[in-house]
Amino acid sequence: MTVLPLPTIMVEPLVRAALLEDLGRAGDITTDAIVPPGARAETALVARGAGVVAGLDCALMAFRLIEPALAAEIARPDGSAVAGGDVIATISGPTRGILSAERVALNFVCHLSGIASAAAAIVQSIKGHRAHLVCTRKTIPGLRALQKYAVRVGGGFNHRFGLDDGVLIKDNHVAAAGSLEAAIKRARAAIGHLVKIELEVDTLQQLEEALRLPVDAVLLDNMSLDDLRSAVAMTAGRFATEASGRITPETAPAVAATGVDLLSSGWLTHSVTALDIGLDWR
Amino acid sequence: MTVLPLPTIMVEPLVRAALLEDLGRAGDITTDAIVPPGARAETALVARGAGVVAGLDCALMAFRLIEPALAAEIARPDGSAVAGGDVIATISGPTRGILSAERVALNFVCHLSGIASAAAAIVQSIKGHRAHLVCTRKTIPGLRALQKYAVRVGGGFNHRFGLDDGVLIKDNHVAAAGSLEAAIKRARAAIGHLVKIELEVDTLQQLEEALRLPVDAVLLDNMSLDDLRSAVAMTAGRFATEASGRITPETAPAVAATGVDLLSSGWLTHSVTALDIGLDWR
Amino acid sequence: MTVLPLPTIMVEPLVRAALLEDLGRAGDITTDAIVPPGARAETALVARGAGVVAGLDCALMAFRLIEPALAAEIARPDGSAVAGGDVIATISGPTRGILSAERVALNFVCHLSGIASAAAAIVQSIKGHRAHLVCTRKTIPGLRALQKYAVRVGGGFNHRFGLDDGVLIKDNHVAAAGSLEAAIKRARAAIGHLVKIELEVDTLQQLEEALRLPVDAVLLDNMSLDDLRSAVAMTAGRFATEASGRITPETAPAVAATGVDLLSSGWLTHSVTALDIGLDWR
Amino acid sequence: MTVLPLPTIMVEPLVRAALLEDLGRAGDITTDAIVPPGARAETALVARGAGVVAGLDCALMAFRLIEPALAAEIARPDGSAVAGGDVIATISGPTRGILSAERVALNFVCHLSGIASAAAAIVQSIKGHRAHLVCTRKTIPGLRALQKYAVRVGGGFNHRFGLDDGVLIKDNHVAAAGSLEAAIKRARAAIGHLVKIELEVDTLQQLEEALRLPVDAVLLDNMSLDDLRSAVAMTAGRFATEASGRITPETAPAVAATGVDLLSSGWLTHSVTALDIGLDWR
Amino acid sequence: MTVLPLPTIMVEPLVRAALLEDLGRAGDITTDAIVPPGARAETALVARGAGVVAGLDCALMAFRLIEPALAAEIARPDGSAVAGGDVIATISGPTRGILSAERVALNFVCHLSGIASAAAAIVQSIKGHRAHLVCTRKTIPGLRALQKYAVRVGGGFNHRFGLDDGVLIKDNHVAAAGSLEAAIKRARAAIGHLVKIELEVDTLQQLEEALRLPVDAVLLDNMSLDDLRSAVAMTAGRFATEASGRITPETAPAVAATGVDLLSSGWLTHSVTALDIGLDWR
Amino acid sequence: MTVLPLPTIMVEPLVRAALLEDLGRAGDITTDAIVPPGARAETALVARGAGVVAGLDCALMAFRLIEPALAAEIARPDGSAVAGGDVIATISGPTRGILSAERVALNFVCHLSGIASAAAAIVQSIKGHRAHLVCTRKTIPGLRALQKYAVRVGGGFNHRFGLDDGVLIKDNHVAAAGSLEAAIKRARAAIGHLVKIELEVDTLQQLEEALRLPVDAVLLDNMSLDDLRSAVAMTAGRFATEASGRITPETAPAVAATGVDLLSSGWLTHSVTALDIGLDWR
Repeated sequence: MTVLPLPTIMVEPLVRAALLEDLGRAGDITTDAIVPPGARAETALVARGAGVVAGLDCALMAFRLIEPALAAEIARPDGSAVAGGDVIATISGPTRGILSAERVALNFVCHLSGIASAAAAIVQSIKGHRAHLVCTRKTIPGLRALQKYAVRVGGGFNHRFGLDDGVLIKDNHVAAAGSLEAAIKRARAAIGHLVKIELEVDTLQQLEEALRLPVDAVLLDNMSLDDLRSAVAMTAGRFATEASGRITPETAPAVAATGVDLLSSGWLTHSVTALDIGLDWR
Repeated sequence: MTVLPLPTIMVEPLVRAALLEDLGRAGDITTDAIVPPGARAETALVARGAGVVAGLDCALMAFRLIEPALAAEIARPDGSAVAGGDVIATISGPTRGILSAERVALNFVCHLSGIASAAAAIVQSIKGHRAHLVCTRKTIPGLRALQKYAVRVGGGFNHRFGLDDGVLIKDNHVAAAGSLEAAIKRARAAIGHLVKIELEVDTLQQLEEALRLPVDAVLLDNMSLDDLRSAVAMTAGRFATEASGRITPETAPAVAATGVDLLSSGWLTHSVTALDIGLDWR
Repeated sequence: MTVLPLPTIMVEPLVRAALLEDLGRAGDITTDAIVPPGARAETALVARGAGVVAGLDCALMAFRLIEPALAAEIARPDGSAVAGGDVIATISGPTRGILSAERVALNFVCHLSGIASAAAAIVQSIKGHRAHLVCTRKTIPGLRALQKYAVRVGGGFNHRFGLDDGVLIKDNHVAAAGSLEAAIKRARAAIGHLVKIELEVDTLQQLEEALRLPVDAVLLDNMSLDDLRSAVAMTAGRFATEASGRITPETAPAVAATGVDLLSSGWLTHSVTALDIGLDWR
Repeated sequence: MTVLPLPTIMVEPLVRAALLEDLGRAGDITTDAIVPPGARAETALVARGAGVVAGLDCALMAFRLIEPALAAEIARPDGSAVAGGDVIATISGPTRGILSAERVALNFVCHLSGIASAAAAIVQSIKGHRAHLVCTRKTIPGLRALQKYAVRVGGGFNHRFGLDDGVLIKDNHVAAAGSLEAAIKRARAAIGHLVKIELEVDTLQQLEEALRLPVDAVLLDNMSLDDLRSAVAMTAGRFATEASGRITPETAPAVAATGVDLLSSGWLTHSVTALDIGLDWR
Repeated sequence: MTVLPLPTIMVEPLVRAALLEDLGRAGDITTDAIVPPGARAETALVARGAGVVAGLDCALMAFRLIEPALAAEIARPDGSAVAGGDVIATISGPTRGILSAERVALNFVCHLSGIASAAAAIVQSIKGHRAHLVCTRKTIPGLRALQKYAVRVGGGFNHRFGLDDGVLIKDNHVAAAGSLEAAIKRARAAIGHLVKIELEVDTLQQLEEALRLPVDAVLLDNMSLDDLRSAVAMTAGRFATEASGRITPETAPAVAATGVDLLSSGWLTHSVTALDIGLDWR
Repeated sequence: MTVLPLPTIMVEPLVRAALLEDLGRAGDITTDAIVPPGARAETALVARGAGVVAGLDCALMAFRLIEPALAAEIARPDGSAVAGGDVIATISGPTRGILSAERVALNFVCHLSGIASAAAAIVQSIKGHRAHLVCTRKTIPGLRALQKYAVRVGGGFNHRFGLDDGVLIKDNHVAAAGSLEAAIKRARAAIGHLVKIELEVDTLQQLEEALRLPVDAVLLDNMSLDDLRSAVAMTAGRFATEASGRITPETAPAVAATGVDLLSSGWLTHSVTALDIGLDWR
């Protein structure tokens, strides 16, 4: 499977902003006061636990934006499964640059690898089932594109990137429209031919109604496993079925076993446990 | 205790950017297609679990930036302890505005309340000890000021905001300087009179040496509880002692019991579990 | 039909930038030197030719950003068909503000109304046929969201907003993949469940092959009317058919008569004739 | 004649913004999914119709910002007259980069070449007359500097770049001042010695009055050819005479024949027909 | 004389940036920790020395951007001559807001009033002579528009705002062109009809040559008073004469007495002595 | 002593903005019209008076951002004492680039060298005394980090960079708190362990009170020399003593002779006399 990468031109402003956030108004006063300009070091990004690497490019960009003379060699590119002790990349050159960029570089790669690792854990847990893992819009403000990239790196797929690239009709939309049918009709009349419509349903009765309507997917929100199984049977492949509600590596297998097409997890991006990656000095 | 607030002028650009990230290039196509402009709704931000609220201003700002006609009433301001079911605020007015801003508003308040809740849990766990909780620079890129604010809301204190507002000398700085003494001397010669110097020490031997030097605090990194106790005894109040290394609500009490002045936790901000807060419709 | 609007929060930065572009480094020196601060005027945006209004909000925002005391009344909102002499809106208040914002306000509304008018002309020309009009990514740099909004105002629909919200496979993609089937397979394996795939085909042979593959739409590029008719027959509704290639109000009816589902026109946004709208003083 | 170029530092932000507008939040998903990273291609920007090239640097910058490894060779630099089939430049290197930047590159060069071609057409049409062609402030929001550059490339000259670099007194200014003389006096008293004053006059009577006043140019707005001829005679070279009002290649020769010094055309920049330029693959 | 004002839309980004520069990442920790939210104060901007007020709007905007509830009353608007002890404006409302914005507000108004006062001093010193005072491009990076506005407030005039709004030919341009005549010819051929040409001359010989050429002004750089007098006589009003070189209130009268039209002073903006203005608490 | 440098990543946006401010909307029209693209020149930045160089990197960055082909050689880096006639750096390459960047480059280096020179003059004047020179927050909006860097280059030290990196309690804070003790207590309760507290005192009575309180420094504001001497004696090294109030090279020695630890000077940054540095052509 190809993982869709993130263009450098999109990543650079985020890395640059993170560096400026850390440098403040006087820069790295500790390093600049203590470390001689000519000092050089050899270091390695090393995993301190098991997981999947993501965001290595962001980390290396942080080093290079601070100090263009730094040289990096990638040992385990994004998508690599690593164990504690594995070297991910080596960075060598002026010590000052390494010390000044270290924290920002780690903040990116630890956070994004945390997401990729969580995604990979769920994906692994549902292996053998037809279901794909997808993420949500429950992301950290400002980091959505990066977080969704990390989900892809971990083997997951992306749901909507925003409010504008897909229709997702929830109960309040339906209430405002008067009926499910009216809601879908209005949506269809307003959108382009490449935009799909997904419908959130909470009950099998709603699903019953949805089956008579032109939707591309249904979001089965917080349904019991029994209801999910029924929903899959009722739908019979007419459109994609997505199960949501507290999907984690622990809960995912049972949900996947119901036969749904998609498991969506907000936990993936809103409650990230950073992967522990450190910078070792040689 | 007064919690230092965040100026509105600093928060607005972040909320604005998060909204634009979500609106993409066409806005909320679902809502705009389905919900009539004149529809109005009454909603409430409701806690779905126990925790401490933080970031409510960000959330309300998101609603108002999308739709100035929305009215909000705050029931539990930042710093409030809430239980599942508690209403945090009510938002009423044009339905379109509520639906379009909902996700971004929740992304802010759930994330920041997650941090405040974690901070409060640690603070609660070490009650009775002298130790204060402090955060680190292990933050999500772009959100440092907000995250550190949330730590304060939860009862924690802020460590350095960046590389520029304090000196923190680590082993690699010492190595580059040749000796601990040289490192401190160089730092002292370069900084202003309101800047403090903290020294990271890994062993009691290093602490021994530090005791002879003009530092304002020592960071006791990943020391055993026994070593921490010895360190506190050796230091005898000469400077502040900070213990770091996997501080969580579970590990904090034992560390605090060693008598250190500060517990610093990167976990607080790099591995946030969002507080579950939802928007209920009436 | 509901026209998807553009959120104010997205429009304001563009209007603000356009005003600053015009004010330069000294502002409106003519007006500030000559017109007394207390002078007031009543003016009207008046159509000087027939067309469809779009971008009125941008124009009024330009006036208000320069001078919050200006009052505006809308007579013909976006989407209104106007004839020469029709009043679109009145703006009254401080003369200085009106004069300083006039050109920028007109630049927005004339350009966007030009697009809406062109779209409406094509839509009108194909009335009675099943075909919808869609726009392309051949837009003016920086104005894509506004231009695509104007297409909607004129009765058209939006194709992709960018490279990221739909898959459009062209011959060079196919060549790089080795085969049409491989290209589609790779795309399908990488994208989310709400993303559709459209395939550009230049010949009926390619269409033949496409019919065996899981695509959501085909772009029939620059085909003859005969070939378009054959393509529609061959496709028999299996997926959407889109005809492209120099679609204008003159050529559109014949293309629509072939039975295709969509007519896409780059001309709509890359070669805009501004609608003549002026500011009359009373 | 030297064409004043545009500094790279001014162009880059515009090209960068246009690329980000097109890449959205996930980048070029079609290309990234289908085209192998190692694929390479040779392509050429080729004119599909006759015109004058402008904006080639913007186009090449788009390619390089996406993929620094792309190599470009310029065959027909800005200002070149091209016919259908003429190669303007070749771009070779990684296929992914070419495909991802193609549309933005073309959007710049087609739009700006459209302007240059229109300017050149008018300039050609008035050859032999003393009149110069000038543009106006009727430009596309955000692109004024680029559009005015393209006018220069086509052989035209630039009128004011904004409200701040020249005084242009219109009837409403005069009305607010009470008299033409008062208006000019106030302007002269407020501006620097390098700023010129132009006066818009609608009738020969107004011109009569203007002849007694210290102005640097008059804008003869929408006058008949007869009146223009009279105006030129009356002015007798005392100041520059500028004719405006629907100047196109068709109308320009007759206007130029009246002997005016300048023809100003808003059509040049507000109603641009893009020059058709495509990217051919070898 | 009308002083050309600065549009609010241009000033706000500068004030906003200055506030953010001062607030850093945690805001006004002193005030927020100590002053209760409900505290209110009455304060006054008071001149501590004699001078001319400029930049009051910037100062008041700083207060309002921090705290919209602050009320301001202007006693001495921009352009007012003040003596030590004069109240310039009163600001009252929430104490926190006043304290947090105070420094930034003063930084603007003290700096700009310093410029206006210096300009006024020179203008006063040359009263009775025909000469006008003009500023240069020797400005503080980022503040040119504000500084040039302050010069106007002080009674001076603006020279070029940048490299783009006037031609100023220096010796190195002439050298590159081969001759003065060639330089002027090339410039004239490239610029619009509202752009003037000024020529820098260092000797009377060069002026002699300039008199035969179509220039709008000459810059007599660092000439002796005798040479200036000769230059004025030689020029005999054919074009404007500008004297430059260490123009201060002390040197200006003698230079003005030579009869030149313009005195240009870089000192005005590159070596500003701030006017002492303080905030008094009642 | 090590001078803390400024990271390139922080400086570049400022230099870029200054260049764009100067280039306006058409660039350097004089140079582009007159100087052939192929012309090359050798130039030198030369001091025209005595002082200390600061900001050379900004100047050279200006040249390189306009024209990457320019080569620079540094003769006297930041911190060098120079006399009139000394070459600071040579810049050679395309003439156009040198001419277009010259003014902006000089604006940076002249302003910052002016600050460094003033700082050095004060530092020199107090040699032999224990006192250090520190700057204030009385800076030019937008340039604080650069100005404070220049103070360091001149041998001074930095006081607070903003409202957030130190507590400075003034009389109005004390008044709002009710008492000095309450003010300090509230501050201490809100801030982190690396933040220091300084107290402004106007009288010896206040100092008396301060001596019983946990502060890190006192600001002795506008005290007489006698009072300063008494204050130093009373304090007896318990905390740092800072004298402020019209500190210049003339007044500094007497103040330093009182034995205070710090002299703070707003004059350093709010009333800068630019160091005269020019660009000589060879």
